Amino acid sequence: MQVSALGEFPLIERLARLVQREGCPLSLPDHLATPLLVGIGDDAAAWQAGSLVQVFTTDTLVDGVHFRFAHASPWEVGWKAMAVNLSDVSAMGALPQYALVTLGLPPDVPVAWVDDLYRGMLSALSRYGGVIAGGDIVRSPMLFITVAMTGVTDLPLLLRSTARSGDAIAVTGPLGASAGGLRLQEHPIPLPAEVRSALHEAHFLPKPRVAEGRLLAREGIRCAIDISDGLVDDLRKLCQASGISAQITLARVPVHPAVRQAFPQDAYVLALSGGEDYELLFTGPPTLVERVVALLPSASLIGRVVEGPAGEVQVLTESGEEVPVALGGWDHLRRP
Amino acid sequence: MQVSALGEFPLIERLARLVQREGCPLSLPDHLATPLLVGIGDDAAAWQAGSLVQVFTTDTLVDGVHFRFAHASPWEVGWKAMAVNLSDVSAMGALPQYALVTLGLPPDVPVAWVDDLYRGMLSALSRYGGVIAGGDIVRSPMLFITVAMTGVTDLPLLLRSTARSGDAIAVTGPLGASAGGLRLQEHPIPLPAEVRSALHEAHFLPKPRVAEGRLLAREGIRCAIDISDGLVDDLRKLCQASGISAQITLARVPVHPAVRQAFPQDAYVLALSGGEDYELLFTGPPTLVERVVALLPSASLIGRVVEGPAGEVQVLTESGEEVPVALGGWDHLRRP
Repeated sequence: MQVSALGEFPLIERLARLVQREGCPLSLPDHLATPLLVGIGDDAAAWQAGSLVQVFTTDTLVDGVHFRFAHASPWEVGWKAMAVNLSDVSAMGALPQYALVTLGLPPDVPVAWVDDLYRGMLSALSRYGGVIAGGDIVRSPMLFITVAMTGVTDLPLLLRSTARSGDAIAVTGPLGASAGGLRLQEHPIPLPAEVRSALHEAHFLPKPRVAEGRLLAREGIRCAIDISDGLVDDLRKLCQASGISAQITLARVPVHPAVRQAFPQDAYVLALSGGEDYELLFTGPPTLVERVVALLPSASLIGRVVEGPAGEVQVLTESGEEVPVALGGWDHLRRP
Repeated sequence: MQVSALGEFPLIERLARLVQREGCPLSLPDHLATPLLVGIGDDAAAWQAGSLVQVFTTDTLVDGVHFRFAHASPWEVGWKAMAVNLSDVSAMGALPQYALVTLGLPPDVPVAWVDDLYRGMLSALSRYGGVIAGGDIVRSPMLFITVAMTGVTDLPLLLRSTARSGDAIAVTGPLGASAGGLRLQEHPIPLPAEVRSALHEAHFLPKPRVAEGRLLAREGIRCAIDISDGLVDDLRKLCQASGISAQITLARVPVHPAVRQAFPQDAYVLALSGGEDYELLFTGPPTLVERVVALLPSASLIGRVVEGPAGEVQVLTESGEEVPVALGGWDHLRRP
């Protein structure tokens, strides 16, 4: 069987089981003990290092797969390559620390392009924290950028596996604009300049929710994921990891106003399954979630965690009828 | 200007200056302070985390660039992808800790190939230490594997920048076999089976010097680099970082016996500039280096650090005449 037939997430699960079965646990002298707290299957790995917790994540952009680099400025590509990693760190409730940058470069890439790529990365880091501490440059037939990033925290981590029946579900901001920006790039339509630029910016210059992730952890939230593959898809992953189901109310899903304006017919589809919003989806006891939502001006309560099969997500109307949601989300290996 | 005209190492230096000039230092609350000890320009980055030091490195294999994956088993590709990172950790004197694995996969890669790739990675980790804690899988037109790895130590780091005039220079083992293995792969010649297999193994199953790096640090060595780009080239980098020159004696360079047998004409060329040996090159006060060399059965004293222009390396005959050495080493961007 080929990897495209299996798909990205089944392949990750398969490899996680293989590592579990055939890998050895970390064996270090006692005075270097840094036990693993979170392994494969969350937004980042994490371990204890003395009184601190280190988190560790990596994310890659491949030209022509994630998006066509030619559609964006190198500055935007750099910003996005950092932002997606910053988002993973924030989804653990940690603060960004050090980044290693791997560039796969075709020989004809202009040096000035690489300079501007780095400037975009540095801008994202100067806004959200983190320092480029090294990396690797390799020749490659196509451009790719892999960032590996560490983060640090002294608070309990935000995990995918800690949702409990009865929890409220909330999201830190409006959804769908990134997918709207991608659609606009691929199929341009006439739109007011401010709508166009809001959609473009949501897709190419996503804003990782670093301060928000920290606030969630400080206020006592223990369960979160960042929305990279789409609200329903990421909620499903969170429910799978927690062994539980969820219900969200369609009318409460915060659709980005630029998406409503640009794609009124599909606004909910883009908000539910568009992906790459990089908002944080989180759960917790209802009174706590309500208090936290009140602290975050753009956050919304959207549903609740319920008893049920692991990973089941229902989208309901306000009167409680189920809305059929096209499955989807982003599978890197299956997409044509 | 294109990156191929500038070359890998000038590009890295340019980006390091850009990060220095335009990047912000890490700003974390005091109780999360984890100051950077080593940034761009050594085998790994490093920071202080309480009483421990974390090191952080990344290395990539691209199919058809580093080697043709079809020439090796997936198990070997996996071993090598881990080994090159383990080598960077060892070159800092640290112990391997956690690895994130990024796979760029064309859709037609068999799942069984990926399984065996992982088995090779896990074998290297079970031998040298380290645990796969996560990663990322992306679709890509060509196969690539990026590993990002952390390590930990409580001893002073092995750095490139700490060589001093009067230091002795030594290397942990014989050189040239990996380059010999690559040459044999590209231009097969008849050879005894044990020579062939020694060369193949040196290239496809390199042995990172993790225990040796730890021993160096414990014994008081403070300066080392791993030999990935070739003895002369990596010694030049070490001298550049230390602002000093070096002289090595050709007759003392430990040429791997399989290379002498397979390529008697070019044995010294392969040993001096072949690359990918993953032995550790280290310097220190002569009495200390002599004591350490006596502790490591395969190590050799090969030369000394001398006053002179930063980064100058001379190869001398035993009577002190200079041997012209073809420049070279491995530049990822310039190689055709």
